[in-house]
Formats: sequence, C-alpha cells, structure tokens
Amino acid sequence: MTVDPDFESCRVAVVGLGLMGGSLAGALRGHCRKVVGVARRAEAVAAALDAGLLDCGTTDLAEGLRGADVVVLATPVRTILRQLEHLGSLLPDGCLLLDLGSTKAEIVTAMESLPAHIQPLGGHPMCGKEVSGLGAADPALYRGCTFIFCPLPRTSAEALARGCALAGAVGAQPLVLEAGRQDFLVATLSHLPYLLACALVATADATTSADPAAWQIVAGGFRDTSRVAGSDVTMMLDILTTNRQQVLEALQAFRGQLGHLAHLLEAGDEEDLRQALAAIREKRKEMFP
Amino acid sequence: MTVDPDFESCRVAVVGLGLMGGSLAGALRGHCRKVVGVARRAEAVAAALDAGLLDCGTTDLAEGLRGADVVVLATPVRTILRQLEHLGSLLPDGCLLLDLGSTKAEIVTAMESLPAHIQPLGGHPMCGKEVSGLGAADPALYRGCTFIFCPLPRTSAEALARGCALAGAVGAQPLVLEAGRQDFLVATLSHLPYLLACALVATADATTSADPAAWQIVAGGFRDTSRVAGSDVTMMLDILTTNRQQVLEALQAFRGQLGHLAHLLEAGDEEDLRQALAAIREKRKEMFP
Repeated sequence: MTVDPDFESCRVAVVGLGLMGGSLAGALRGHCRKVVGVARRAEAVAAALDAGLLDCGTTDLAEGLRGADVVVLATPVRTILRQLEHLGSLLPDGCLLLDLGSTKAEIVTAMESLPAHIQPLGGHPMCGKEVSGLGAADPALYRGCTFIFCPLPRTSAEALARGCALAGAVGAQPLVLEAGRQDFLVATLSHLPYLLACALVATADATTSADPAAWQIVAGGFRDTSRVAGSDVTMMLDILTTNRQQVLEALQAFRGQLGHLAHLLEAGDEEDLRQALAAIREKRKEMFP
Repeated sequence: MTVDPDFESCRVAVVGLGLMGGSLAGALRGHCRKVVGVARRAEAVAAALDAGLLDCGTTDLAEGLRGADVVVLATPVRTILRQLEHLGSLLPDGCLLLDLGSTKAEIVTAMESLPAHIQPLGGHPMCGKEVSGLGAADPALYRGCTFIFCPLPRTSAEALARGCALAGAVGAQPLVLEAGRQDFLVATLSHLPYLLACALVATADATTSADPAAWQIVAGGFRDTSRVAGSDVTMMLDILTTNRQQVLEALQAFRGQLGHLAHLLEAGDEEDLRQALAAIREKRKEMFP
C-alpha cells in the first residue's frame, strides 16, 4: 500500500462507531495524522478506544470535528441526511466531508446545500457483514472491496483525490459513479438480495418451520441465500426508503424472472427450463470467475 | 468416530463418481472392508483411483455390484429411477440399496418394486457445493451434515441401522423422515433458494449487467444470495421435475411473502415494514444461532 503524502498529514474524524465506522477508523489508524472517533454514547467511544480503533474519541460533535481535514459520516442514511442539515458550520475551511451511506441520490442532493467552504463527496463502500455494531468491527473489512464515490459538480479534483487516497489507505478500490446510476445498480445488486433473503426466511417461517425436522435440515443453500436477512434493520429501512423507486423496479424485474422460471416448471417445458438454468449458471460464472 | 462392527465388514459399491459419490467413497475408505467405485467413463474411474477415493473401480456395473453388502446410487434423481428398473437382479441377497437423490417420494415408490431379496433405503445427505464433478470431491463434504433417510415399510431395522452406520462413518447425523415430508421440507429449504438465486442472476443479467460498473460492485450480498445458481443443471432439473408440485407451492408462498414486503415498501408503511424486517431478522437468528 503506497501512502499518499497529502492523506498522511490529514486529521480524520469518523462520526458513528458501528460496524462500518469502527472498521474504517481502525483501518485508517497509522495511515493518517490522527483518527478521531465521534459517537453519541460514551460507552461506544470507550469501546472503540479500548479496541485500538481510534487515536482519540469524544461524544461532543463540535469537538470531534474541530481541525478535521476529513470527516466521514458512518451513520444510517437518514441520520446522515439529518446531520447534513446542521453540520456545515462546524467544519473547517476546505474540509472533505465524505459519507458511507448505501444510497446516494438523496444524500448528494442534500450535500448541494452545504456551505461553500466544504468539499462534499458521496461515498459507498461495497462491504459489510450481517452482524452489526462496533463489536463486529474489523479493520480488514474494507480490504479488496469497491469503494464507490459520487462527486458533486462543486467537488474539487483534489477533494476527490483525497477520498480515493482514503479508500486506498484501507485497501479498497475507488470507483467514481453518478449517484443515480449507483442507486440503480445497488438496488439490484444489494437491496434486492436483502429483500429476497427476508422473504425466504418469512416463507420458511410460515410453512416448514412448524416441523421440528426443518431445523435439522436447513442446508448450505438456505444459509447462504438467507444470510443478508440478518442485516441491521434501521440501516436497511433507511436504504430501502431512500431508494424506494429503484428497489421497487428491481423487485418488479425479479418477479418477472421468477415467474418465468415457475411457468416453465409448471408447464413441464423441460428443454426451455434446462436452457434457461444453463444460461444462468454460465452468467453467474462470468460474474464470479 | 466409533466404528460399527457390522459396517466395518461391509463391501460398499458407489455408483456414480461425481461430487457426491466421489466424496462419499473417499470418506468411507478405511471405515469399511472395501470401497468399489462404478462409473460409465473409464476416465472417471481412473481419476477417482488416482485421487485415492477408491479401493478399486470399474465401468462394468455387474462387476462392481458383485458381492456388495451396500450399494449407493450417487447419480441424478432420474438416472436413479432408471437404474432402479434393472438393478435388482445384479444385487446380492440382503444387500442394502441406498441412494443419494435430493427428492425422495418418486424414488421410494420405485424402490417398492425391487426384488424381495434387496433392502431398499431412500437417502438424502444435506450437503453439496455449487461446483460439481469429481474434481470437486472432498471426503470432508459430509462432515457435520444431516443425512436424511426414508425407509420403506419393507426396510428392515438392520438395514436402516446399516444406513445410519454409513452416515456416522462419514461424519453425518442421520435423520429418519417420511418421503413426502422430506420433499415438502426441501422444496422450501433447498429447491426454492436455488430458483431464487437463478432468478436473481437473471434479473441482474437483464438489467444492471449492461453497465460495466456492475461487475465491479457485485458485493457480498449478491454473491451469497446467488451462490447456488452455480449448481449442476442436470441434477437440479431432475430435482425440480420430480418435486414439481411441492416446489411450485413453495414458490407461491414465497411470492406472497415478497409481494407483502414490496407492498409495505410501496405504500410507505414504514412502521409495519420495520416490524416485518425485525421479526424476520430474529427468525433467521433462531435458525442459525
């Protein structure tokens, strides 16, 4: 990992010390001048300090942001939207304000209204776990993941470069995307899988779970397919609510595809079903070579 | 692992040397008198011998079954159904005939017609991989998995005990279930997740895959949820076709659950959506503590 000299000299404040914020803070430590953690609860700050994820921490937002060169909002999407309303005056001149929210159109729009002395940048690292909270934080979480950036027209090239340097410092690959395009892509690639996992668990709960044998035979396929149903609900509700239209369209497309497979099975149209399943198998191999 | 003295003296023939048969043969070696592999292609037999999965092997079915105390059919479900039609006369008196097919009602019905000197037993080990073939065989595959057995009314207690001893020898936990009940359970817990994974891949292929950025942001959630879409198509087609009605009912139940979540999201009924997602999250935690 090559260290960017500009980024190396930065003081970085991470607001929100859950899985994403705690992991990011821990991964940044040693790659920049100082990592400051900010959380509402003193216990969270103390735990993050104990876990060695921070250089220093505070529950006082103004104090945490003082002198920061980079501020990272690592809270659920709608908390980010509320924070953007009153954060501007607390930030130093030229400060990069980055967020980690999974949906970007609403956040980037809200960032347009920030005071002119701030450099806003939408961010979305494509990593996570189905367990949430600081206890699950892991500085290796970002390693190898794609870190999406959605710059605003007002975002300077230097600010974007600083964001990319942050991604590089935690082992992630930056990818610049327009906010609407990122929301469209993650609706299908991330939010849809979550809803499928949830509906699968709900289906088993409503049908097979009444049979005690079901609990002994829940196999690998079910475990994998349902894994993301364990995601944090507040986080996911914010995501779904701020990407509603794109998610509904992805759901619609999915229901069409599933209906098609169901139709082929019901009709006993075996050759067509075989071709469809074989083509899908090849597509997945292309996606994950 | 305690070795069952009856099973230790058995000659076991495994017919079909793909992922499931090859892995089982390798796991059984050393836990019984002899493991004989039978496959159509000489290359498959040679490869299984090279990989140390067999004591001996042949492409001649009659030769492979000669003197066997246990015969395991490790082929796709409809191949098993065809094999059951002409296998009877080749099997020694009192031989246990076990299969590994994922659907059991049709197989157990076909087993009723076997000659009286054979002890038939339906079997379904709840393990697998999304890669198929002998090259993926792994003697540890069965370790810790649930091995479902569906005895027929004619199956003796000794034959069932021998099947359970085989499961124990490869590290699996036996679970006795009636065939129709097993097919109902796996329709939701195994076959439904496969179709969801397939429809998810098809959805991404039809929508987001046109955007080159999609390939960079396919994240953990998508990878996990779509994993089983890589399963062997011939195997899955046999499974779906021989469990059509139960799978269609599971699909129907799933579509209802997904439609309900979509409705709550579309209606902006946030409190109900939160409650539904939170209840599902708890259910999954119960399923996988």
